[in-house]
Amino acid sequence: MEKPAEPGWVPVWADAAGCASRRDLGPILRPRSVAIVGASNSAAKFGSFFTRCFLEMGFARLYPVNPHETEILGMKAYPRVSDVPDEVDLAFIVTAAETVLPIVEDCGRKGVKGIVIYSSGFAEKGPEGLLLQQQIVSVARAHGARIIGPNCMGIYSPKQKLSYYPGLPKQSGPIAMVSHSGSLSVYLVEMAKAKGLYFDTVVSCGNEADITSVDLLEYFGEDPEVRVIVAYLEGVKDGRRFLRLAKEVSRRKPIIVLKGGMTDQGGQAAGSHTGAMAGSGRVWKAVFEQTGIIANDSIQEAVDTLVACCDLPLPKGPRLAIVTGPGGPGVLAADACIEQGLELAPLSSATRARLSELVPSVGTSLRNPVDLGMTSNNEPEMYRTAIETLSTDPGVDAILAIGSADRPFAEVMSSVRQSIDKPLLVAGLLPPESYPEGYLYLAAQGVAAYPDAHRAVVALAKLYRYAVTVNERSRESGAA
Amino acid sequence: MEKPAEPGWVPVWADAAGCASRRDLGPILRPRSVAIVGASNSAAKFGSFFTRCFLEMGFARLYPVNPHETEILGMKAYPRVSDVPDEVDLAFIVTAAETVLPIVEDCGRKGVKGIVIYSSGFAEKGPEGLLLQQQIVSVARAHGARIIGPNCMGIYSPKQKLSYYPGLPKQSGPIAMVSHSGSLSVYLVEMAKAKGLYFDTVVSCGNEADITSVDLLEYFGEDPEVRVIVAYLEGVKDGRRFLRLAKEVSRRKPIIVLKGGMTDQGGQAAGSHTGAMAGSGRVWKAVFEQTGIIANDSIQEAVDTLVACCDLPLPKGPRLAIVTGPGGPGVLAADACIEQGLELAPLSSATRARLSELVPSVGTSLRNPVDLGMTSNNEPEMYRTAIETLSTDPGVDAILAIGSADRPFAEVMSSVRQSIDKPLLVAGLLPPESYPEGYLYLAAQGVAAYPDAHRAVVALAKLYRYAVTVNERSRESGAA
Repeated sequence: MEKPAEPGWVPVWADAAGCASRRDLGPILRPRSVAIVGASNSAAKFGSFFTRCFLEMGFARLYPVNPHETEILGMKAYPRVSDVPDEVDLAFIVTAAETVLPIVEDCGRKGVKGIVIYSSGFAEKGPEGLLLQQQIVSVARAHGARIIGPNCMGIYSPKQKLSYYPGLPKQSGPIAMVSHSGSLSVYLVEMAKAKGLYFDTVVSCGNEADITSVDLLEYFGEDPEVRVIVAYLEGVKDGRRFLRLAKEVSRRKPIIVLKGGMTDQGGQAAGSHTGAMAGSGRVWKAVFEQTGIIANDSIQEAVDTLVACCDLPLPKGPRLAIVTGPGGPGVLAADACIEQGLELAPLSSATRARLSELVPSVGTSLRNPVDLGMTSNNEPEMYRTAIETLSTDPGVDAILAIGSADRPFAEVMSSVRQSIDKPLLVAGLLPPESYPEGYLYLAAQGVAAYPDAHRAVVALAKLYRYAVTVNERSRESGAA
Repeated sequence: MEKPAEPGWVPVWADAAGCASRRDLGPILRPRSVAIVGASNSAAKFGSFFTRCFLEMGFARLYPVNPHETEILGMKAYPRVSDVPDEVDLAFIVTAAETVLPIVEDCGRKGVKGIVIYSSGFAEKGPEGLLLQQQIVSVARAHGARIIGPNCMGIYSPKQKLSYYPGLPKQSGPIAMVSHSGSLSVYLVEMAKAKGLYFDTVVSCGNEADITSVDLLEYFGEDPEVRVIVAYLEGVKDGRRFLRLAKEVSRRKPIIVLKGGMTDQGGQAAGSHTGAMAGSGRVWKAVFEQTGIIANDSIQEAVDTLVACCDLPLPKGPRLAIVTGPGGPGVLAADACIEQGLELAPLSSATRARLSELVPSVGTSLRNPVDLGMTSNNEPEMYRTAIETLSTDPGVDAILAIGSADRPFAEVMSSVRQSIDKPLLVAGLLPPESYPEGYLYLAAQGVAAYPDAHRAVVALAKLYRYAVTVNERSRESGAA
């Protein structure tokens, strides 16, 4: 395969000149009226699937378009977008690849501002598909319309009543996501929901024929309602703009990235998935370092990071205090702390003196990790006192509490968190299957809880490194 | 702190000459009658806690010993072990550290073969505790009795009706465990149960004043009913014997190790936990390499490895085929495969031809990862055909299926696994909280299922490296 001059950054069809501005994206991400081209009554078809998603969210000004139907899912159907007797801000196209061009032309004539093309069979299928994709963009641009996709799932935005998958939460939150995999975003949204975290907007941007993940990064970076950005990226067009934007946005809010195609073989898989040039893993690792982007290896790890970014204040330093009931998990957490580049906080003599009043003298430890002994299992209040004591120690920057994650423990964690101003992470000794009630309570209360201390430490270490980058960046710009 | 000549291997109180033989351990791990010294009616006391554990398991010849009670939890109590009107194979001691020595003396006079000392306050507390611990061992040895502990939780063995924690499974299985943390073993047993995996015996060996984890490794290595060994180790006495045994036992069955104290700071925590010299992480990593021990960083990872060891045949090579519905998770799994030292199996043209009949032509891929497209979400039979096809490709050594983990998907996975002879790993797109029924079914059917493709790949890579070591070892001994 022929490589572009700057490996992995600028695929052949990239067109940085056409990048979408905030003004372009607004009407697309906040449409007042929507047409669905290829809407269908046949439950097996995607045209029905997506229409039902909008109905489920309660989107009001919805116009099904299908020349072969007069009524679709109880709504009047129109043969073409140009037949809709209302303005159309956004059109969704769910038809076969070869039918898309004339539909886009029709949308253009109608004055549609944004077009989301679900359909696959374009750049990801080879040169012919790429050509067709380029023609479609030219036609849309000639009419002043912008395109999301093709080969994507579009937009999920509970506040705007847009959705691309049944059962996604109607609750809105401070997270935005861009994704080169629609399904992956669905799973990530579901996993975040289980942690009590919700989304403002998710855009599945597919082949990025026009609007790119970089455009969306800029948009979400400026949106004051978005506090955290998540991205699943397979490749990025216009690497320089991405680099500049990622650096700038990172100063204001964390960017959590899952990069698909970090290896050559993964990159080939990405190529058949979204036609992206994935770029070399080495280059990407350098980009993560330089920008402050928080990189992750798996969906689970990305959700763990998201929990830390949403639920925790930024740690002021690397010194972690661990408080545990069982000894072994505390020892393992201490190892993880060091291996992840954090430090075990040395406890002050005042802290140790106060802890000695709390902790039984056998089977326990007043060092860090603070080992409360087996009785703490039934006495979560011991944790409260220990955590409050540790939080007043100036040598402690963050606290990890390892305990049973049952409901009484969860209640103490939620309550003590409000009385301290340092990051408190909670690691359950058994997974959510064992203590669903405790974990749900922790999630609902916005406590950063993990089913494994190692995962908690990894997430804290990522947040800490992010905080360091942000601080360095602030000092640089302060000095400049 | 003064270091021993061979760092971390031989702590000052080690006494390799006294290592326990299979003949010594048999009566301790399979006792016919048990006395509990320090048994109590008071629910808040450990003496009550442990007695109730035995009652819950239904252990018959149980004798509570407490000079201040005549009846405990409905059983007649005896002032001393020597007052019990029956042979006593095993005595459990749950009294304060300073009372243990005369109790051990009394046990010795009675002819007790094994003594489990739960009590803390010995070597882990410093030189005085160590001295007391050594005195206790001398007294026991003089009477021909062997000791487990002190500072431990003793023995869990459902077949023998021994337990140290309420609610542990009564079902027995092929796993044995030695642990320097009783609580950690409890959590690990519970987590394994959620994966459908059960234990033959778990020994929490605490400070190892007498019987060591190395003795137990040898015992379990020879026990034909034990197929997999798990160990949580903070330090090991007699490093040379451990090294030799680990190499030898690894040839017959996998040894899954969680090592606490891999860092200096974690090692200090281990010191206050079980008084162990944790040794340097560097030395331990070399030991893992040389022996074939499968090392893990967290309890979750150890359970993931356990699932692979129990549910999968050993892979014959590193070439993994991935079959997925959603594209993004497939790309990430392909990256994980390479990063973990496995290979993406190149599919034969015959395989691709057969897959092309199955897979829709848009939004899918016939390369590896095989992307079945979104429709596969509701058609798990597509996975069956794909997996069967992949399993007949001679270039494929193992298969990873990424899917929804709902019940219909789980049923297909369980059924197709029986028709193929290569390792099949299943990765759910959402965690067990979302599809409890599917995951429980997979667990009950012995399917190696993970809530994240990355975790599945990590576990397979560990199993593969183990298989390579075992094969190399076999060739070496064949050549010798």
